[in-house]
Amino acid sequence: MSKKLNLLMFSGDYDKALAALILANTARDMDMEVTMFFAFWGLFLLRTGENGNTEEKSPYEKLFGMMTPKGPEELPLSKMNFSGLGKKMLIDMMEEDGAPRLINFLNGARKRGVNFYGCKLSMEIMGISKEELIPEVEVIEAKEYLKDALESDIQLFI
Amino acid sequence: MSKKLNLLMFSGDYDKALAALILANTARDMDMEVTMFFAFWGLFLLRTGENGNTEEKSPYEKLFGMMTPKGPEELPLSKMNFSGLGKKMLIDMMEEDGAPRLINFLNGARKRGVNFYGCKLSMEIMGISKEELIPEVEVIEAKEYLKDALESDIQLFI
Amino acid sequence: MSKKLNLLMFSGDYDKALAALILANTARDMDMEVTMFFAFWGLFLLRTGENGNTEEKSPYEKLFGMMTPKGPEELPLSKMNFSGLGKKMLIDMMEEDGAPRLINFLNGARKRGVNFYGCKLSMEIMGISKEELIPEVEVIEAKEYLKDALESDIQLFI
Repeated sequence: MSKKLNLLMFSGDYDKALAALILANTARDMDMEVTMFFAFWGLFLLRTGENGNTEEKSPYEKLFGMMTPKGPEELPLSKMNFSGLGKKMLIDMMEEDGAPRLINFLNGARKRGVNFYGCKLSMEIMGISKEELIPEVEVIEAKEYLKDALESDIQLFI
Repeated sequence: MSKKLNLLMFSGDYDKALAALILANTARDMDMEVTMFFAFWGLFLLRTGENGNTEEKSPYEKLFGMMTPKGPEELPLSKMNFSGLGKKMLIDMMEEDGAPRLINFLNGARKRGVNFYGCKLSMEIMGISKEELIPEVEVIEAKEYLKDALESDIQLFI
Repeated sequence: MSKKLNLLMFSGDYDKALAALILANTARDMDMEVTMFFAFWGLFLLRTGENGNTEEKSPYEKLFGMMTPKGPEELPLSKMNFSGLGKKMLIDMMEEDGAPRLINFLNGARKRGVNFYGCKLSMEIMGISKEELIPEVEVIEAKEYLKDALESDIQLFI
């Protein structure tokens, strides 16, 4: 039976998402199964820029949707973001070394068959609908995350 | 033998504590054993507002105790806190969806028999005494945390 | 066979490094094997102050090297750093209790035979060379981290 990696994606930072997706892609290349469960700020990585049905959203949810990152390239750094300047510097340094961008790592994970799950409760609270996220996302509850984590060999909270 | 979840609660953020307590409560509802080990900033979640014996505290410890959150509802968000405005918005969005508050999730975990441990060294350094924390807390050392984590099926650093 | 602890050191915060090294040292005292894999900001903990070969660095990498912490005592707190004031307060509180400093915990881990690994890709992107880090560091790729984590009993992302 193949080994399994389970990542709880909570933070929604550019750099942490980069680390997580590098692990996810590498694990898939090693024939491991990979599950990424996105909760709270982590969900922003999966946004495509689509707005979903805004009529179903409360004023707070609309405002929150506008204020927060819409997809991988809008995520901030966890440190030294300096209103985006630090992030630009990191991305330039990545380009100097020919490293792909976050969006490429995300698309790599999609092609490699990483399992993407969204946290139902987080999506309800934040007013994020399935239509706003990449189509691979399946919406599940905490119980299903725990079942998957129990069957995994490595579990990380990122 | 029942499965076991072990959470190292380090960060002391409102949102991360929410995620951790949802996992803890869900795991208990699945008949898993749950251990939460609180270190550093994580300890603030367990404060009741009691001051302990202030005569035993150094001036630094008194100041530190006053500057830091006294219980679940005073914890800041890990992101977009905006001096409490972002947190107010998140709580209002939770209310719109009828989601309980952090204090309710904490009380749920207490009723469900989650095991609460406080890190002895962190409490000594920060000058936090057992009397300032919810009565369920047992004070242990890093060695005992590691023993418990070794017997667990899932370990997360939050 | 001895039990094994695997720590992915991502964050580069003084307080989180402290927690991680306390776990690492305690685990070694319990005869566990310990691996610490340093990526991104985590690498700053291992810097000695040596500059490496600056001629091989791009202007961005030189600037980045100057702006970022050079070793354990320069790391910021993850919270309440207040431009170093909060950190000074924490260190003073640690001294009141006779607790060693971060550098001492790091040196303890080196003496106890903790395995130190640096993430190759992170080092390339940030322009950090092996010569700038403590000599125990072996440079490895994500694949080797995952292999080690698969063989471990506890894995944490810090």
